[in-house]
Amino acid sequence: MVVELISVGTEILLGNIVNTNAAYLSRECALLGLSLYHQSSIGDNEERLYEAIERALKRSDIVILSGGLGPTKDDLTKETAAKVMGLSLVEDPHSKEQIAEYFKQIHAKVVTENNWKQSMIPEGAIVIDNDNGTAPGLILEKDGKSLILLPGPPRELIPMFQKDIAPYLSQLEPDMIVSETVKVCGIGESQAETMISDLIDEQSNPTIAPYAKLGEVHFRITAKAKDEVIARKLILPMVEELKNRFKEKVYTTLEEETLEESIYHLLKDKGLKLTTAESCSGGLLAGRIVNVPGVSEVFQQGFITYSNAAKRNLIGVKKSTLEEFGAVSPQTAKEMAKGCALTMGSEVGLSTTGIAGPGGGTDEKPVGLVYIGCYYKGKTIAKEFHFQGNRSKVRDSAVVQALILLRECILEDAK
Amino acid sequence: MVVELISVGTEILLGNIVNTNAAYLSRECALLGLSLYHQSSIGDNEERLYEAIERALKRSDIVILSGGLGPTKDDLTKETAAKVMGLSLVEDPHSKEQIAEYFKQIHAKVVTENNWKQSMIPEGAIVIDNDNGTAPGLILEKDGKSLILLPGPPRELIPMFQKDIAPYLSQLEPDMIVSETVKVCGIGESQAETMISDLIDEQSNPTIAPYAKLGEVHFRITAKAKDEVIARKLILPMVEELKNRFKEKVYTTLEEETLEESIYHLLKDKGLKLTTAESCSGGLLAGRIVNVPGVSEVFQQGFITYSNAAKRNLIGVKKSTLEEFGAVSPQTAKEMAKGCALTMGSEVGLSTTGIAGPGGGTDEKPVGLVYIGCYYKGKTIAKEFHFQGNRSKVRDSAVVQALILLRECILEDAK
Repeated sequence: MVVELISVGTEILLGNIVNTNAAYLSRECALLGLSLYHQSSIGDNEERLYEAIERALKRSDIVILSGGLGPTKDDLTKETAAKVMGLSLVEDPHSKEQIAEYFKQIHAKVVTENNWKQSMIPEGAIVIDNDNGTAPGLILEKDGKSLILLPGPPRELIPMFQKDIAPYLSQLEPDMIVSETVKVCGIGESQAETMISDLIDEQSNPTIAPYAKLGEVHFRITAKAKDEVIARKLILPMVEELKNRFKEKVYTTLEEETLEESIYHLLKDKGLKLTTAESCSGGLLAGRIVNVPGVSEVFQQGFITYSNAAKRNLIGVKKSTLEEFGAVSPQTAKEMAKGCALTMGSEVGLSTTGIAGPGGGTDEKPVGLVYIGCYYKGKTIAKEFHFQGNRSKVRDSAVVQALILLRECILEDAK
Repeated sequence: MVVELISVGTEILLGNIVNTNAAYLSRECALLGLSLYHQSSIGDNEERLYEAIERALKRSDIVILSGGLGPTKDDLTKETAAKVMGLSLVEDPHSKEQIAEYFKQIHAKVVTENNWKQSMIPEGAIVIDNDNGTAPGLILEKDGKSLILLPGPPRELIPMFQKDIAPYLSQLEPDMIVSETVKVCGIGESQAETMISDLIDEQSNPTIAPYAKLGEVHFRITAKAKDEVIARKLILPMVEELKNRFKEKVYTTLEEETLEESIYHLLKDKGLKLTTAESCSGGLLAGRIVNVPGVSEVFQQGFITYSNAAKRNLIGVKKSTLEEFGAVSPQTAKEMAKGCALTMGSEVGLSTTGIAGPGGGTDEKPVGLVYIGCYYKGKTIAKEFHFQGNRSKVRDSAVVQALILLRECILEDAK
């Protein structure tokens, strides 16, 4: 089956947003075994959108449109798609109810009239509930072709695709695509790829594709077969081979598990409690740990100690340490990690201190210099990093490297 | 003049890379006053690329292709573009010299034969030197149309565009495009648009376009004119009109200023210091505030009090309050806000407590229920929110609404 993407929105044509939806949808379609030869972006213009949909339906079996489903006047995707398909719009009581429910749940005081436009659907369309917004998704089927309409915001599009669209597409494509993921941390992309270049050269079925994430590399191993059992048999030896090569750098083989979740499990299994003390990351480290539901079993509090005074008053960093070595030093990182753990009676303490930029750098301590401290079982270590990129990239890098250092400390001790 | 973009490369269709070139080129073309109605992405396939170029040349004056200029077999852009234009390839001695020079400078030991393919150019083409790679850019002109070929890697494409392509395009397009942004917070997209629907209906020059962000709406006002002074004169009355309608909901008219930056300026101007105490947002609120460089003047520390014990021990929330009303209650939100400020001697305290999900909800206190507390000048208030969406969306919503509440408290007091 051939699938094609059309992204709708003048903000894309003006370059005001980067079209991450196209990359996401393309990757997911490839995993479902669908072929994709065309992506296009069109503004909020009925005539050009009509032409684009018409052309796409001629050359592809499935056309996925994203964006232009909202309540405002320039949202034209549904109306135009219905026109191309020759369908009229009718009110969908279920969608109307869902929209009313949405506004009730957020206790909206005013629901403007234009919102009800979102409950009008092309006759016969399959309606897909939107759990994260008001515009429902729609599937229109005619003459063996499918037109799929999705809301533009990624936080609405991605969950909807995962929950309802992927299962719909997978029953259209008879071959089964199965994939598993091996996630490694604490190793660079090029080094990781070099370590398996022989496997990449040989690949046919299963295929192996590396995806770099900040501080992590995910290898997705994908097999195509008539049924799931055969596909899984093709995948298994490759998963074992990767585990063998990357050893304890592999933090999970579960598609859904994140690095912070794997660390939550590690802490929980060992009955450990963690406290954080953040300077340059300013809350983002704790924020990432709290991504994990139920994390309060292992994480109950953290400190943001952005100033020297806060480092001293809240977690007992010594005045002499700050004066002699400075706030950005291995000594301060260590005292922060140990201090926050002892203050709260936690077994583990984790700290960040560094120069996130753009200002504040010197020859001796340049922008990007970050120290991460980890206190565990009476020992405290600090590690030095030199991160590249802007303020946001330096801070995100500090967060992921702190998680990796924490993981290493606990695993190292267990040996 | 109408310009159109074609991005070439199978890696885009597989979703292995996000197409940031399209966003960059679109934004630059808009600033040059060019109209852009189509973006498309095509794989490394001669037939489909030929069709795409042919169609683009029919409907647009200028077609910019990026990618597929490299030395390997699947790089087909130049060959295919020449074919569509009816031009044959000839060797360009200047390009050959440039490629040899490039390899000399990077101290390359081996120069593979396929590299010389990059010195073949369509006859009559304008050659654009590539300062950051080996494949030169090319401009092909015929029958009043221009076909511009750029290398795919952004670190080659962007400098080449800035140095040579932007000046070339600007002499083709005499008009100038100028835009300004009015950013409002604390109002929904549909309500915001309803408040200016008359302006949207009337628009021609300047145009006005709303963009929704979590908790915010940005209005971009764009004018086209012979010179910048005239364009700015067209924009100014519209900016004033929006400020007039949205009043104190407007937090900035600076394109680059974020909500957290505007709050940083507000606190700094009034000589106020802020402390945060976070439960459900778990550090993300402080993390967002610390996005602002130099923020330590107004923000020096924060608390993550995820457990009840942390709420009591660190910031003095009363045991009786937690027992009687629960951790997720207006009473607890207020004591957190006041407690964190008093503990640290700050003038302002800001707190979040809620049920981010997916578990932990009850009929009385469902997932998405969040209380935000703000302490300022001896007064403490708490506001109740019911957010929709997954754990991540609830937490991000809590962060932005906390910033908005803080802003409202300070502005309200100033009245």
